[in-house]
Parts: sequence; structure tokens; C-alpha cells
Amino acid sequence: MMKRTKYCGQISQEDLDKEVVLCGWVHRVRNHGGVVFIDLRDREGIVQVVVEEQSSPSAYEVADKLGSEDVICIKGVVRRRPPGTENPKLKTGNFEVLANYVELINSAEPLPFPVNEETPISEELKLKYRYLDLRRESMKENLLFRHRAYQIIRKVFVENGFVEVETPFLTKSTPEGARDFIVPSRLHPGKFYALPQSPQLFKQILMVAGFDRYFQIVRCLRDEDLRADRQPEFTQIDFEMSFVDEEDVIAITEQLIKTLFEELLGVEVKTPFERLSYQECIERFGSDKPDRRFGLELVELTDLFKNTEFKVFKDVIDKGGVIKAINFNLGELSRKDLDELTKFVRSLGAKGLAWIKVERDKLTSPITKFLKEEEIKGILERTKAKPGDTVLFSADKREMVYKILGNLRLHLAKLFNLQQKDRFDFLWVVDFPLMEWDEEEGRFVSLHHPFTSPREEDIPILQKALETEDLEERKRLVHSVRARAYDLVINGYEVGGGSIRIHRRDLQELVFKLLNISPLEAEEKFGFLLRALSFGAPPHGGLAIGLDRLLAIMRGLDSIRDVIAFPKTQKGICPLTGAPDYVSPKQLKEVHIKTVEYQ
Amino acid sequence: MMKRTKYCGQISQEDLDKEVVLCGWVHRVRNHGGVVFIDLRDREGIVQVVVEEQSSPSAYEVADKLGSEDVICIKGVVRRRPPGTENPKLKTGNFEVLANYVELINSAEPLPFPVNEETPISEELKLKYRYLDLRRESMKENLLFRHRAYQIIRKVFVENGFVEVETPFLTKSTPEGARDFIVPSRLHPGKFYALPQSPQLFKQILMVAGFDRYFQIVRCLRDEDLRADRQPEFTQIDFEMSFVDEEDVIAITEQLIKTLFEELLGVEVKTPFERLSYQECIERFGSDKPDRRFGLELVELTDLFKNTEFKVFKDVIDKGGVIKAINFNLGELSRKDLDELTKFVRSLGAKGLAWIKVERDKLTSPITKFLKEEEIKGILERTKAKPGDTVLFSADKREMVYKILGNLRLHLAKLFNLQQKDRFDFLWVVDFPLMEWDEEEGRFVSLHHPFTSPREEDIPILQKALETEDLEERKRLVHSVRARAYDLVINGYEVGGGSIRIHRRDLQELVFKLLNISPLEAEEKFGFLLRALSFGAPPHGGLAIGLDRLLAIMRGLDSIRDVIAFPKTQKGICPLTGAPDYVSPKQLKEVHIKTVEYQ
Repeated sequence: MMKRTKYCGQISQEDLDKEVVLCGWVHRVRNHGGVVFIDLRDREGIVQVVVEEQSSPSAYEVADKLGSEDVICIKGVVRRRPPGTENPKLKTGNFEVLANYVELINSAEPLPFPVNEETPISEELKLKYRYLDLRRESMKENLLFRHRAYQIIRKVFVENGFVEVETPFLTKSTPEGARDFIVPSRLHPGKFYALPQSPQLFKQILMVAGFDRYFQIVRCLRDEDLRADRQPEFTQIDFEMSFVDEEDVIAITEQLIKTLFEELLGVEVKTPFERLSYQECIERFGSDKPDRRFGLELVELTDLFKNTEFKVFKDVIDKGGVIKAINFNLGELSRKDLDELTKFVRSLGAKGLAWIKVERDKLTSPITKFLKEEEIKGILERTKAKPGDTVLFSADKREMVYKILGNLRLHLAKLFNLQQKDRFDFLWVVDFPLMEWDEEEGRFVSLHHPFTSPREEDIPILQKALETEDLEERKRLVHSVRARAYDLVINGYEVGGGSIRIHRRDLQELVFKLLNISPLEAEEKFGFLLRALSFGAPPHGGLAIGLDRLLAIMRGLDSIRDVIAFPKTQKGICPLTGAPDYVSPKQLKEVHIKTVEYQ
Repeated sequence: MMKRTKYCGQISQEDLDKEVVLCGWVHRVRNHGGVVFIDLRDREGIVQVVVEEQSSPSAYEVADKLGSEDVICIKGVVRRRPPGTENPKLKTGNFEVLANYVELINSAEPLPFPVNEETPISEELKLKYRYLDLRRESMKENLLFRHRAYQIIRKVFVENGFVEVETPFLTKSTPEGARDFIVPSRLHPGKFYALPQSPQLFKQILMVAGFDRYFQIVRCLRDEDLRADRQPEFTQIDFEMSFVDEEDVIAITEQLIKTLFEELLGVEVKTPFERLSYQECIERFGSDKPDRRFGLELVELTDLFKNTEFKVFKDVIDKGGVIKAINFNLGELSRKDLDELTKFVRSLGAKGLAWIKVERDKLTSPITKFLKEEEIKGILERTKAKPGDTVLFSADKREMVYKILGNLRLHLAKLFNLQQKDRFDFLWVVDFPLMEWDEEEGRFVSLHHPFTSPREEDIPILQKALETEDLEERKRLVHSVRARAYDLVINGYEVGGGSIRIHRRDLQELVFKLLNISPLEAEEKFGFLLRALSFGAPPHGGLAIGLDRLLAIMRGLDSIRDVIAFPKTQKGICPLTGAPDYVSPKQLKEVHIKTVEYQ
């Protein structure tokens, strides 16, 4: 094999009449009467190689037998393509290489699917032959884009004085989070390491150690049910800062996001990003990660019906529920659409879907006959419904209404293609409650994580809540406490989340108590953090960004799998390698476990 | 808390007479009659803060109660220190801050050990209170050095057109390597993921995918016995290139190492590095990773004794063994030293240690009385022994002699402090055998890994070996086959290793056969690699560098633990978090395993 002198995709004017050696894959090959035309491809692109039987018989003999994806090396002279045969679709389309030497380096068997953008391929096949899938232009570009993103991210952090530190993979359970992957220990029978769900505690420890500003692009692992578009391992941009408040963390994050969008996409990003309170998000969008690229906000109607005779609404209000609506004003809803939407909300637990369709001269609706005139008037005024619009109702328990209308918004956006992929809506969601009551567990749980600081002025409320015997009063008090937390939402995805952390041991212990974590349990699980807080912990806070999701949004991709080199399926399988797989009895014995079929 | 305007360690001339706000830790505090002097420390260094009772009584009141490692915030004006009180040991030693405001942000309990360089601390305590350990100047510098190294490494790769790609952590067993850490799967009862020992197969797959040049700074995990200075998880600089030969990989590596040493240490590095064959290393140093910073090379003496009457040597030679010696000429060996060395070689399996001490006018030795005059003359000539030197012998099976003298060299170097930490010896070891016979397993094993390519011209020998029935002949043939592998050795440590890989399926299958891996097993374990090789795999090769070891060598540290933020003990324990630990029965049940005490 000769040594390459240039990438195929970089052949240009400056190579004209010069000899080059190229290596790559046969993208396409065809023989036109004694002349073989090869589209030769490498990472940088494609160039046309011409091999003539007459002038180079031995090269021609090799070239004539080539098939798709064979690996070859060629030597030849760059020339301008004959007028009229240029290919404007190729960067190199004005040139071709007249080869006098062609070497077959490695041949390719017939492919399970062709390497092009057009052929649709099943996810399973794509992942099994990932090396072929990754040869496709769009997939290759996704990973090159990711590569460039890494470098920009680090540049931003390094320029801002952050120190890159690696944290352990074999560590201890991070409780209060998702399910851990566990790793049996060979040297310590019966004990297990846990793979990190995030470096949360380690980055806090680094602040206690005085590193002041830390960052890492780091893999995190969570053994969650892989609903929707999740991966058991994902990559996080993780950072933490000392002696800061929310504004410092938000400012760095905005600088990072702005730089990424501007340098990678050429998209201008205005900072500071808008901020909305958690409460306002829920009220207006039924979600704490609203997609604001389209309207369809939730409208509060409960008060209109306080004297209603419409039984369905009345019952809901009597039970303390609420009535809200969305005015769908971005398209025409047919009867069939409405049936489909009804089915959709039922799947979420709604009893049905009430609606009013506003036409030029009348209202069509299954419910208007039960409503008083002033009620209907109120609805139309409040929702600003015009002819062509349809008002969609939800009457239910408050949380249910948010869930149903929040999801209905997104469902409608998909149906009517309202989510423009090249528009980016950046939003901070702030003023989260610190904890919420979990009915199932019968205790308070953290909305973010138990290391999140409450607002300074709310700390006395926490203290008071702890001293209250009355559970309802305690709930009321606790729910009023706001966290110093902030989520970064882009286009309806929670791309990042962070907070100012608790840096005082007494406050951390108080929060543990309210979370019903006993002092013993706290010591066992978080003893090292509590100790660290008592040896000179600075005020600190930080944020973590889901890199895979961020990149997918930037690239306009639906699935994060397309920005990950070797992702797993929804069942956590890697079709390429076949992981997970059985291991030998010896391996199990070495780590002191056996597999069991639990009943 | 006010916001910091500057780091403590950065106070300089330009701040003179200006007001600053500083945040940090109380490094030292003392009260001299109504004036409190605080050495205030942050990541960037220390500055002296002065608080006068007279001018700032309320600040003084806070300052007077401060203790070591309390976290404080101060406001004050920078002034020049009075003449004669400057501290030349501090960067900021010409200045001090006269504080008019002092706030205690978080107090520190009495410390388990003081934050300074002088106090020796047990490893266990260091790791348990890692956040305090990391506050010490040397440890902090180790991690900042590591941070700078990351950035330089990536700069070199990015400038050379490498693409950074992340590879999976939940993957499949990498056989032919060390022991895997395994992770039970919840969704696939009885099946396990393995944590990656290296991204070897994934980087090869990336080459098949056409990425041309890949790199990653990546965590690798091996469940090996943690003898000496190993960690269960370690960091690797990993890269791979397509359409290259050994010279390309070596050139990039040298550029990387040169850049790191020059930019981080200001040490000039001459390239290309010297190269020695595996055989020569073994013969001259008894090791394939020789430390050449001192002499003490092995000298071959066997032929001198072909007619010897000295029974010990005669017996060894009769059994096919060899006799080699080291002339220790870098210090005086006392009788006590010799006793100690004898004990040392015995611990390695030697029967004893023969020696000849050359004095001005005589030889002292327990063996000269058994030797002929010409034998003694030969020894002295061959070893170039002069008065003051001591010749140390090993007579044993060949492999044993290498082992004993190779280790004896290093032992002597430690005793006599011959390994200068600020001298760096860079070496490529090349021409490794592809495989060696493993007596225990009764089969050939790869010296590097089974994906390493043999030299092109040696492939027919492999073919011939496979066809030979005679095992001895097969061994002879196989042992003569050289690998296209290269190890980077610095100061006696194998810092990196790599090879040109096999890119043809038929050759890979041939190698598997010689390694006694059945086609079924090959398909099961490496089927995806074999398939990838048949769909257009380019020639490729790469290297991996142990980053922890490299950094420890650069920093002159004995232990890699000192360049890792959160390392584990020799028993694989993290004293900070207490990992590994017991998990709940629920967690075990979820992943379909139970712990067992195997007999």
C-alpha cells in the first residue's frame, strides 16, 4: 500500500495536474465502454476517479472488478472534468483523478444495506452493522458535529478558569436518584460498587477541596426503564463553582449554549434567556419543561362555572378539581381529529374530551347544550376563540388537568407539525418547590436532589415544618419552600438542571430529616458528605447538561441514538456486540454471586 | 456573602490601594496584640490579610475567633507590606490586604490532619479525607497539572485531524485480556454487561466505519489483583488511525509526548526516540521495559563455562540453562548488602547469589575457589570489572536468569538511588513475538492482543505452523513470527503500547485458530469484528497510553494515586465513600442475582 497524500474530499484547484495518492471506499463504480468511473469516498468526502483501459490496462483490470465499499488505494493525476460533466453536488465536483494505479486493499462482501441516505433501514439492522450506518453522510456528520462540540465546550470552560477533573466509575450508590447499575466486587464478597448516575457528590467534594471551578464531560449510567428516548448510559456536561449564586451559574451556562449554537450552527442566540417560574410553566403549559415554539396555552376557566348546571363540570368543581382549556387556533380540527384526540386523552386517564368548535355562524359541540349563555360567552372571551378555532377542555383534579392538557398541547403540535426544528427556544425554569409530598411513599421527596439548597429566607419555614405535628400543616409549609434550583429548557426538553447546593451541615441534616432519612441512614449513605461539609465547605452550585439531547436538538434529530456512536436499543441491547450476554460460571463464582430466577 | 473580585493568589502590584473582596480558607491565623494576621488561601494561592482591632473593631471581633480552614469572605484595601516583613515564599508576598470587613461563611471542625506539606499522613486517612488532602499544595498541583495535560493532549490530536468519539461503558466481555468487571442486567435476566478494559474493538470498528483518525481520553476498568501500583479503573489516551503503518503511529505518539514534556515541564525532548528490539531488551536488561537511566546491563557468560568444573554452573549448562552477570560498578557493596541481595534473589526463586568482589589487589568471592584461572579472567574481561566493582551472577533456566537479573538491576537502582526523577529516557520496544507458548494453558497466547497483525512476510510461517502436527516444530515456527507491535517505555515503565491491527478476515481467523479459539467461540466472542472486517476494513493501527502512569512519571511521583482525584486503595476500596458496599435485597432481586459464599 502506498501512503495517501491527500483526502479524497479535499481535492481542489491547487492539486490540478499534480499526482496524488488516495485511499478510501468505492462509493459507486460504473464502467462506460472501457472507462471505469469510481466515486472514491473517505471521511472528508468523495472524488471521481477515472481509469481508462487504453492508457492504464493493469489499473483498469483491477478497477473493472471493484464492487461497492471495497477499500482501495489509487495513484493518479488530478485534472479538470470535461465541460458539462461537472458535479455541483460534490465539493470536488469540478475535478477528477485519472488513475494509473489501482490497488484493491480489502474487498467488501455484499452489504446488508447500501451506504446512502435514501434507503430506510430498521433500527436493529442499523445498530447491528453500525460501522456501515456510520459511513452514511448524515451519521458521519452527527459524530463530527459532536467532536466539534466537545472542543468548544472545553474551550469555554477552560477560558473561564474551570479545572477538568475525572471522577470515579466504581463508586457507591447515589440514593434518592434513579436505579443504580451495580458491580459485584471480587475482593469483597457480598459487596457491590455502583456505577455513577452523576458525579454530583464528587463535584461537591471537589468544591470542599478548594478547586473552585470544576468541569467534566462525563458518562453517567442509570438503570431506568428505557421508555421514550433514553439510554442506559448518557453523557453529561457537568460543572460546579464555589462562592457563587444562581446568577453566576446561569451566566456560564448561557455563555456555553450561546457559543455552541453560534459556532456550530451560526445561529444567533440572545442572552440572557427568559425565565419563568415553575408555577407559571405549569399553569400556562401544563409542564415544567414547556415547548414555547407554538402557542396553545392553557386557559383557566374554573371560576366561570362556579354556578354551572352542567353536571360533569359541577362534579369536578365540587371535588376541588379545575377546568381548563386550550384554544386550538393553528389548524382545522375535523371530527376524525377530535375522535383521535379523545382517544389520546383517554389513554392518559381522562374520562373524555369536551370541545367547542367555533364556526363562522355557529358553535358545534357536544356540551354547549348543557351550558348557560354567559358560560359560553365567558369561554369564548377567555380563550379568544375565533371562527375556525376549537376549544378543548379538561375538567379533572388539578394535577390531571395539567397532565392532560400539557400532553395534548404536544400531541397537537406533532399532528400539525408545529415544532420547527430550526427554531430554538431557550428558557430557564426557576422557583421550583424544594420538595413535594409523595403519596405512594408517604413522605416528602426532593424535586431535584436532597443536596439542593432552599432559599435562605425559607429555611425558618423548614424548621417550623419539622416541628409541626400536623401533617397537613407540614405539607403546606414544606410546599411553600422554594429551591435555589434552575432548569434549562430548550424546545420543550429539560436539557440541563442545577442548583445552589447546601453547604452547611446543619441545614443538610435538617433537609434529610424532612425527607424522612434517619440520622443512621444519613450517616451510612451520606456520612462522607456531611463530614466534608463540616471541614470548611464553601458555598457552591452548578449544573449538568444532557449532551446527547442537546446535540440531537441542535441537529434537528428526533432520537439521541443518532448522536451516539454505539447506542443501545430500547431494551438496553447493543446489537453490534450482543451485550448483555451470558458469562461463565467461573466469572460468577469469582465475584461471589449466582443468577436466580426470582418468583 | 459578597462576591469575590479576585483570587487571593493573584493579588499583585495592580491592586495596590484598591479595594478587593476575597473568599477562601484560613490557612493560618495569629493574633499579635490587637492585630490578626490571616493567611487566606484559595485555588490560586495565599495572601496575607491584616485585621486591626483599632481601625475595624467589628471585623476584628470575627477575625479573632477564626480557626484553621474556616471559610471566610473579606473586604479590604491592598497595601504594600512594611519593609522587612515581605514573604519571598509567597507570590503575593510583597502585599497584604488591610481588611475592614470579615465574614465567617462556614466554620471548620478540628481537622484530622493539618493542611500542609510537612505532616506525614497515612494513605487510608489521606483517602478518607481526600478533600483535605487535595487542599495541600502538591496534591492540588498534581490535579491542575493533569487538567493542563488533558487540554494539550486534545490539542495535539485535534490539530492532527483526529476525531473524538465516545465508546460504551456497558459492553461485552473483552476476552484474551484481564478479568472483566461484570454488571448484571435487569431487563435480561441471567445476562451481564462487562465494563470495558479498553475501547480496542470499538476503535477498530470506528476505522471500519471510515472515521480515519479517532482519539479519546477514556476510563478503562480491569478487575485485576491490585499488586504494586495499579488501580481498578485507570485512564487511557486512546487513538487509532487508518491507512497507516508503524511509522505513522509512532510519529504521532512522539509528537504528543514531546509536546506534553515541553509544554508542561519545559523539558526538551529529542525525537525520534531510540528503538530496541524485544530480544535485545531482554538480553541486555532482563526486561521488555528497561530502565536505561543507569547501566548495570546483563553480560552473557555461558560460553566461558562450557568446560567448567564448578558443579553449580555445570549442572545449569547441562540442563540447557545459561549464566549471566551484572557488574555492579555504581557503588560499594558491603557484605551486608550482599546478604540482602541474596535474600532478594531467593524471594524471586533463585537458589542463591554468586558474586565476585574485585578489590585493589585481590578478589573476594565464595565461588572463585571453584573456578579456573581463565574462567575468572574471562569473567573480569567480559564484565569489565574494576577494583571496587562486584560481579553478581545468575545461573538458571534462561527465563529465570532474565527475571532474576532484571529485577536485581532495579533493586540495586533503588538501593543506590540511581533513578533520577528529573531524567527521562524514552524508548520504543519493537519486534515483539506475535505469540508465546503458555505452559499453564497449554496453548499459544498473544503477547499483545489477538488483533495485532504479524509482519506481512511472516504470515506464511503462521500458515505453515497451523499445518504442522509436530508441536515442537509448531512452537519454533510460531515463536519466529514477529508482531507489528510497539511499546513506549519511559524510565522503565511501559507507558504505552500499540500495533498495526489485522484488517483481513482470513488472517484474523488464522490467528484465532493458532490461539486455539474455535470457530464457534470466535464467532460468539468476536463475530461482530470478523463481520466488520469483511465489509471493507481499511488497514489500521493505533496506540494506548496509560495517562495516570505518564503523569506520575512527569511529576516525579512514585504512586499513580497521587495524580488521581479519587483513587482506590490496594484492596479496591474508596475510603471516602466506603465503596464497595452492601446493597439491598431488592436491588439484588431486580437484577436477578444473589450473593453466594462459594466453598
